[in-house]
Amino acid sequence: METRVAVIGAGPAGLAVANVLLHRGIGCVLLEAESREFIEQRPRAGFVEEWAVRGLEARGLADKLLAVAPRHSTFEFRFEGTRHPFDYTELSGQHHFVYPQQILVTDLLAQYLDGGGEAVFGVRDVALDGIESERPVVTYRDAAGLHELGCDFVAGCDGAQGVTRKYVGGRTFRHDYGIGWLALLAEAPPSADGVLFGIHPRGFAAHMARTPAVTRFYLQVPPGDDVDNWSHERVWHELHARLGVPGGAITEGPLVEKRVLDMHNYVTEPMSRGRLYLAGESAHLVAPIAAKGLNLALNDAFLLTAAIEAHYGGDGEPLAAYSATCLKRVWQYQEFSQWLSDIFHSSTLDPPSDPFRARLAQARLRRLLHSRPAATAFAEIYIGKAADF
Amino acid sequence: METRVAVIGAGPAGLAVANVLLHRGIGCVLLEAESREFIEQRPRAGFVEEWAVRGLEARGLADKLLAVAPRHSTFEFRFEGTRHPFDYTELSGQHHFVYPQQILVTDLLAQYLDGGGEAVFGVRDVALDGIESERPVVTYRDAAGLHELGCDFVAGCDGAQGVTRKYVGGRTFRHDYGIGWLALLAEAPPSADGVLFGIHPRGFAAHMARTPAVTRFYLQVPPGDDVDNWSHERVWHELHARLGVPGGAITEGPLVEKRVLDMHNYVTEPMSRGRLYLAGESAHLVAPIAAKGLNLALNDAFLLTAAIEAHYGGDGEPLAAYSATCLKRVWQYQEFSQWLSDIFHSSTLDPPSDPFRARLAQARLRRLLHSRPAATAFAEIYIGKAADF
Repeated sequence: METRVAVIGAGPAGLAVANVLLHRGIGCVLLEAESREFIEQRPRAGFVEEWAVRGLEARGLADKLLAVAPRHSTFEFRFEGTRHPFDYTELSGQHHFVYPQQILVTDLLAQYLDGGGEAVFGVRDVALDGIESERPVVTYRDAAGLHELGCDFVAGCDGAQGVTRKYVGGRTFRHDYGIGWLALLAEAPPSADGVLFGIHPRGFAAHMARTPAVTRFYLQVPPGDDVDNWSHERVWHELHARLGVPGGAITEGPLVEKRVLDMHNYVTEPMSRGRLYLAGESAHLVAPIAAKGLNLALNDAFLLTAAIEAHYGGDGEPLAAYSATCLKRVWQYQEFSQWLSDIFHSSTLDPPSDPFRARLAQARLRRLLHSRPAATAFAEIYIGKAADF
Repeated sequence: METRVAVIGAGPAGLAVANVLLHRGIGCVLLEAESREFIEQRPRAGFVEEWAVRGLEARGLADKLLAVAPRHSTFEFRFEGTRHPFDYTELSGQHHFVYPQQILVTDLLAQYLDGGGEAVFGVRDVALDGIESERPVVTYRDAAGLHELGCDFVAGCDGAQGVTRKYVGGRTFRHDYGIGWLALLAEAPPSADGVLFGIHPRGFAAHMARTPAVTRFYLQVPPGDDVDNWSHERVWHELHARLGVPGGAITEGPLVEKRVLDMHNYVTEPMSRGRLYLAGESAHLVAPIAAKGLNLALNDAFLLTAAIEAHYGGDGEPLAAYSATCLKRVWQYQEFSQWLSDIFHSSTLDPPSDPFRARLAQARLRRLLHSRPAATAFAEIYIGKAADF
């Protein structure tokens, strides 16, 4: 089998890449390890920044999202029993669109397949050969046996657990926060229109609307904590304590997902080797502190497809610059996530592990709430309005 | 001997306090461990933020400063052989006034003594008694013997090595950067109009004009390094390497001061107990990363004298709020200094101790240079235009 671009992985990065290539008439084959049903159900992120929505829209990929996704303009810090709303749209002019990742995946996959796109699900044993040649070969196995897919380019979009990253080699930068987040999905209506960030001596907590009937919550827990330590009763007790305020109670519901995330980041440099180009979490993972991961995946996809299109138009420069261009926003978002983590986590836990740093985090939060220049700078990077430097 | 306010320490904080009290007709006695000649020669800070200059001016304490101090509006980051000027005055509307601390001390001392202010130099064995009573007593020894000074209030302005802090008790927050700065004074004209911050794989370096004939330099060194390791030749070799760029050479001269500063901070909370009020470095030390120490000392002095004046006018509230009010700016400046230190130090030293953090520091610096909102927020806190939150 032959194609121009082998796209490995049908997450947001891979599906955005495959759709754009299909639309531009650049042949591609999409290979995915899981089943279609699985990826259409898998809950992940849910906040799409306006620049990314506009990027999808410009590529004809945002019709359903624009029709139904609620727009958020404000979040609340909650601490010491008080609500501190923060209107980042007033400061930046841009919104978040709340759209669960699996719905976006479902949309993009339907659009790709309905448009005649070629996809193979349930592939195993993916291996790459000749990525530094003019004509790499992807081998994989499915129910019918072993296959070889010759191509001009490989788009490695197979996520944190994928195989493509190892072919790039290069250097991986890692950071471990030493913090766990218990990620929860509750069959409960959102307790507030926007995101809530609870900064509390018992640990950080967060609330993020997903749909009118489903809400995501996070609870700071010891890293490596066992979900079995978190009964329904204990979860809701902590959520009420850390996020509830007078006039702002938290609505309970059945917990349909409980996972402990050991908060960590990594970045692979460069994001390419030969004719293999990584996009999304195959190249970089950012802890969900600032809801940046999905947005970075889309940024990579936009840049990669534009660069591949330029290549076939005779301009190799964008592909040569692809890694460096992606990494600008990647590192800005990593830096911002670390900065925000200091606010969320340094002043929590009583007594704090570093009392000096706890005071710095409190000062940082006060500046954000009282200085308009500080708030404006925060809003710009929180919504990702400008970050490519 | 009796007075209203015993002011212990004739640094910038104590001298500002004593001058304001004298001018307002509130009796005070100024006690200083060193000689007048010593404190008029001791080189320390040199950058006064515009709000602090205006505070001195409003109290009649800035005539000479305003007449002669150069105003700075721009600094340069220098890295990878390139100059990156940063015009914080354009962004904030405010300047730095460059005025060596010992000259300010000389001015303030002359004004105090010429105005009939009472001062004792070379005092030893300062001790406080009854600070939680209505009438504290300060005992001290001088050439004439042991003295007792009864007062309404004690202003503890005796700096990092002073004795008053220990009477407050309370809690001290400490942070050690694990970094040394070799502080140098050179009899050399400044190599540039403004401050230079050199971010270099061999370590951070800085240049700050003091007078047309004297320049302060800093070199990042291992903490606890011995000044004897730093010959004239080695110092200038490193300064040229870390700060010099094409078209921006560094001018050499005899080194008249060499000290290794182990970069650290502390903050005492609260800054008062009973009728003892700390001001300046007796209460908080901030490493000279952002040239904040002198400015904080003046802020304390302005607040303390206003509060004492209010007390004698029948309003005790400002004195009751003194510590909390001071600590707002103290913690903002501590937070900013830490943030700036990450830029200065995290990406220096090759290889960096934490490569992930080095990348974050580089991203932070790029944002500062390319995002106007980020630059505006930085300028506001760099010049201290707004920081009381």
